[in-house]
Order: sequence, then C-alpha cells, then structure tokens
Amino acid sequence: MIILGVDPGTRRTGAGLISVDGSRYALLHFEILRLESSLTLPEKLVRIYRSLGEIIRRWRPDVLALENVFYGRDVQALVKIGEARACAMLAAEENGVPVAEYPPARVKESVSGNGRATKEQVQSMVKRLLDLKSLPAADGSDALAVALCHAHCCKTQKLYSDLKSSAAPPLAASGLRQAG
Amino acid sequence: MIILGVDPGTRRTGAGLISVDGSRYALLHFEILRLESSLTLPEKLVRIYRSLGEIIRRWRPDVLALENVFYGRDVQALVKIGEARACAMLAAEENGVPVAEYPPARVKESVSGNGRATKEQVQSMVKRLLDLKSLPAADGSDALAVALCHAHCCKTQKLYSDLKSSAAPPLAASGLRQAG
Repeated sequence: MIILGVDPGTRRTGAGLISVDGSRYALLHFEILRLESSLTLPEKLVRIYRSLGEIIRRWRPDVLALENVFYGRDVQALVKIGEARACAMLAAEENGVPVAEYPPARVKESVSGNGRATKEQVQSMVKRLLDLKSLPAADGSDALAVALCHAHCCKTQKLYSDLKSSAAPPLAASGLRQAG
Repeated sequence: MIILGVDPGTRRTGAGLISVDGSRYALLHFEILRLESSLTLPEKLVRIYRSLGEIIRRWRPDVLALENVFYGRDVQALVKIGEARACAMLAAEENGVPVAEYPPARVKESVSGNGRATKEQVQSMVKRLLDLKSLPAADGSDALAVALCHAHCCKTQKLYSDLKSSAAPPLAASGLRQAG
C-alpha cells in the first residue's frame, strides 16, 4: 500500500509518500511546496492543487491522509487552512484517490504513543519508523506522521476484522473517519 | 462587463452573474448549488469546483467577486468556508478569470448605503438594483450583492482615475483588494 500524507498550508504544503508492506515502512518521496508571498491567493491554490495532482498521478497512492481537527482563534488562519485543504482533497478526488482524515491527537498517539507528544517527539519517531538518516523538517514530519497514522489504523482495522472472524472478543473499534 | 458573484459554502454555494453597462445592471444568470449531505467532503468540493468552472466557461465573466473577511468562533465552520472559497478561486484561476475580494461591510454599504444593513435590506436593494420581480433567496442575494459591489467599486475607480487625469483633487481611494 502507498499512502500520501499531506500537511496543507498556503505558505508551505508538505507531502510525504510512504509504502507499507506488513510491518515495514519505507519513505518513497517527500517534498515541501513553498508558496512565495508574491503570488496571489488563487495562484497559490492552483500551485498546491496542481503539484499534489502531479504527485498523485506519478505515485498512484491508495489513499491521501490529512488531519481534520483544528484549533486556534485566528479566523483568517483557519480559513486559509480550509483553502489549502480543499486543494489537497480536490486533487485526490479528481484523481480517484480516497481521502482519510485523522484528529491531530490520534496522529501523535499513533506515531509516538502519546496524544500530547511534542513536535520534536513526533519528528524523532517519524525518523525512527521510516529509518531516516536525519530528522525531517517539522513541516515534513507532519505530512509523514499522518501517513504513518493511516498505516497503523489500517493494521488495527485488519487485526480487528481477523479477530472478529475467528470469534474472539472485539477490540475497540478503529477511529478511522472518512472525510465527510 | 460581466461579473460573477459567488457566495461559497459546502452546503450551498450561490452564484450570480450580472452585466454592467454604464449605470445599467442586468441579471444574466443565477443559481444555488445545493450539496447533499450524503456526499463526502471531497465530492462536495469537486461539485463546487466543476459547477463554477462550467458557469465561467459558459458566461466568460471578466471577474469573480467574493467576500473576504470572516467572523465567528465555530472553528470547523471557518475551515469549511475556506474549503468552499478555494473551489471558487481555483475555478476562476484555472480559467484565467481574476478574483476580487471585498469585506462584507463594504458589500452591504455598496449595495444599501449602510455597512450594517440587515440581510432583508440587502435582499431588497439587490431586487431593486437588478429590477427583479421577486426577492432573491438570502443565499442568492449575497452572491448578487458582491457582484454589484464590484460593479460600484469599478465605477468609483474609473471616476477617480478620470478626475486624477484632469488634475482634480483626489477622492478617497477605492478599497478594492485583489485576492492575495
């Protein structure tokens, strides 16, 4: 399975592709798209939409994963998050790739075992899980972390359905949510 | 000049096209796109993007106008506004149509003479300015109001540049802001 994790923003958008084979993860590709401040907002959105579309057509991921719960009081920043998210979701949907969303605490817990992990702890675990030589930049580790979260959640779901089919007592249901 | 006003939302998106000839306005086309709750979010965004793209290619507006200042504490609602706005801006940019943004108070003032006008006052003035037989729905009047606001602002700008070129004392600069 190939998972594209995206950390969308109108200043920087991180995109990380991982492959999952059983319990083995590998980094396939990673990039941070930097949107120059000289661009108009519509120009930035087109760049994000087209760049992610190109990545999707090149790597054919099975799913695009992103975070879905937002905090903060900065109204304009929240609207901008939505604008960048839409470009990612449009790029996925237009290319027939399903979108999976996860709350940030779920991503942190899935990667580091702690829903309140610091940025540095998440970076460090992303580096370890993907066997990277150096720490990924913070923007990049968020994109890779949500991809790893999806990989873990898929495994939990598979384990749950395997156990269910062998009539074992049920585990807690996975919190995987489709974007809706 | 043809202006496409858009009131973007992930439940309903209003789109209104007006033509401007001197001080004469006419309604060319108007529609409210309703996004069924059974659709996933990526499906809704694709519908908005494609529908607005079709309207743009059919009517070839000179500009797409929308509101740009947001209030509210509902974090998820603000992100959703951003998501729907991005679809409108992407549809414009991908079709070579510039985007103009106006603060809501500016739209109300431009249409009704009062930056704190009620929804009903705006609806009533939209009906009068476009010589409509009946009141447009609230969703629709917002899209038409921002289109009318752009028409008014263009006129003010033209008047200002005409006066400037004849060396008359300057008027207050127009608050037209390009999306950026």
